[in-house]
Amino acid sequence: MTPQVPKLFAGLDIGGTKIAAVIADPRGEIAASGVVPTEPSLGPEAAAERVAGMLRELESRCSGEFLAVGVGAPGRVDSVRGRFVLLPNLPGEWQEFPIVRWFTTALCRPAYLLNDARLAALGEYTFGARQYAADMLFVTVGTGVGGGLILDGQLRLGAFGAAGEVGHHTILPDGPQCGCGNRGCLETLISGPALNAAGRALLECGRTPVLAALTGHDSSRVTPLLMAEAAARGDSEIANAIERAATYLGIGIANAVSITGVQDVIVGGGMAFLGERLLGPVRSVVRERVRMFPSSSVRVCRSALGVHAGALGGVALAIQEYSRDASAAPNPYMETLQ
Amino acid sequence: MTPQVPKLFAGLDIGGTKIAAVIADPRGEIAASGVVPTEPSLGPEAAAERVAGMLRELESRCSGEFLAVGVGAPGRVDSVRGRFVLLPNLPGEWQEFPIVRWFTTALCRPAYLLNDARLAALGEYTFGARQYAADMLFVTVGTGVGGGLILDGQLRLGAFGAAGEVGHHTILPDGPQCGCGNRGCLETLISGPALNAAGRALLECGRTPVLAALTGHDSSRVTPLLMAEAAARGDSEIANAIERAATYLGIGIANAVSITGVQDVIVGGGMAFLGERLLGPVRSVVRERVRMFPSSSVRVCRSALGVHAGALGGVALAIQEYSRDASAAPNPYMETLQ
Repeated sequence: MTPQVPKLFAGLDIGGTKIAAVIADPRGEIAASGVVPTEPSLGPEAAAERVAGMLRELESRCSGEFLAVGVGAPGRVDSVRGRFVLLPNLPGEWQEFPIVRWFTTALCRPAYLLNDARLAALGEYTFGARQYAADMLFVTVGTGVGGGLILDGQLRLGAFGAAGEVGHHTILPDGPQCGCGNRGCLETLISGPALNAAGRALLECGRTPVLAALTGHDSSRVTPLLMAEAAARGDSEIANAIERAATYLGIGIANAVSITGVQDVIVGGGMAFLGERLLGPVRSVVRERVRMFPSSSVRVCRSALGVHAGALGGVALAIQEYSRDASAAPNPYMETLQ
Repeated sequence: MTPQVPKLFAGLDIGGTKIAAVIADPRGEIAASGVVPTEPSLGPEAAAERVAGMLRELESRCSGEFLAVGVGAPGRVDSVRGRFVLLPNLPGEWQEFPIVRWFTTALCRPAYLLNDARLAALGEYTFGARQYAADMLFVTVGTGVGGGLILDGQLRLGAFGAAGEVGHHTILPDGPQCGCGNRGCLETLISGPALNAAGRALLECGRTPVLAALTGHDSSRVTPLLMAEAAARGDSEIANAIERAATYLGIGIANAVSITGVQDVIVGGGMAFLGERLLGPVRSVVRERVRMFPSSSVRVCRSALGVHAGALGGVALAIQEYSRDASAAPNPYMETLQ
């Protein structure tokens, strides 16, 4: 009797600056993981080649082969045709790249594609704290602000796969111009770059002694995490700037909760590492603004998967779609797939 | 051979000022309809007695008996326990009234309960223009602003039946106090009373010659429809006030579309009678602000059912729940139910 080899799946999270990969089992236990820089100027095919190489190398460290790969990309994608549509932070040659066909051919295994925030929502729902009800909103706050909606236990895609785009709903009608073309989007007010800009402006005005010391008076070194440290150590104006961002995030979450009736909200992305300094005020604002049902029933928590949410979402997508493909056309591999 | 008698269902739309009733067949063809004033001070039992009397009188004009009744109420309801929870525009004695048990006992037929805006969404989806995709957002703009979400062909209830509460999401973070306890809700900016208040203020400043003539200089006679007429006949400040309300409605709809990915939006309630003067600017704003997918794919239309949307929603609810009850426990009536 041969020992039971666990089935493995791969997940990829393509970002504007780096590409994260994991190979994991159907319970989300990570067998191997890696990261490469994106290098946008090389173009999508060179990037895909490098990623395929990384996946093969990661696989060589695992006890078996992965069966399929789920891929997330930062922007609009066409999941049916398996192509990028509009990745705003990547050059023109990346647009329309048929990533699914490329990976399917290069890896000889099925590949599946989603927007990165929807992918992370799926990852968090599938492998996260597992205490969620059937409905969940995932909000990722980093360079951009994205989101994903799980309703009745299913990732909602909606028109053009764009359901859950909380980052691009209007918080301030006359607010800052957003990269998407709208004004006053949540993203313009709370993204990492927006918070950094507020911190730099305060630093340059000489109103942030702690942040000045932490960055050696170099405003280009301002980050959200350094701002949180400065706030904790007494820079009250920096604390106010973080609280202002948290207030806008709270309004955005309250809006999504009121419109969808979702009660479980998970915050991920780089800004989630600010922890309670961000989430404390967010919860207060949600309590103030969700009034049509008991807002005490709304839970706002930090991502359980952290940096792996996107790539583990890729694993979840690969499992889900591979199983669906397999049930449509019986596949011998499926016999022992848990 | 006895002639086939069509099965009938009843629908009730309880509002703050009037209660509308219809009896209709499973295709939504209205056999009889009526309206009585709500008279809040009489209390819920006296109001229910009067409504039951109206239903019996309407039934006497029909070719058969109605099998069940669906009821909508303006506020939070507990559909499972069949009670009102919080009807903000009705006195204390109405709260917690067990309307479903009361009607079931008085009419000897099943009764079902929903929030009025969710009920109208169900009515519009079931019996409206029938051109909608599986997803639809219904927004009702009248004394209050409510909404309902149809996703994948099903009315979404969400936590406490409150999914679709677009009227109580924040459009202006520092905006007017809302009756719900939040600030700057969509409802505070575009409801009938909000528009009337803007019209009265302009009239009292002497800046609206046409509206002054139409109302005989009596600001208590200002209504949205008179404002629309004044705007059409040259009161530019009134036209601006309507356009401002339309802009806020457009922002609210764009927000709901971005968050849920819904493409079909139906506007009902009294303000929908402003027609293109309201919906024209709404569509422009939606085009400007929905950027994460082609906003040209978003359709904003006026309710096809008009004043009957709520009561016909009651008919749709009665059909849906009666069929569900019947399929759980076989019922001889069901044999000829289409």
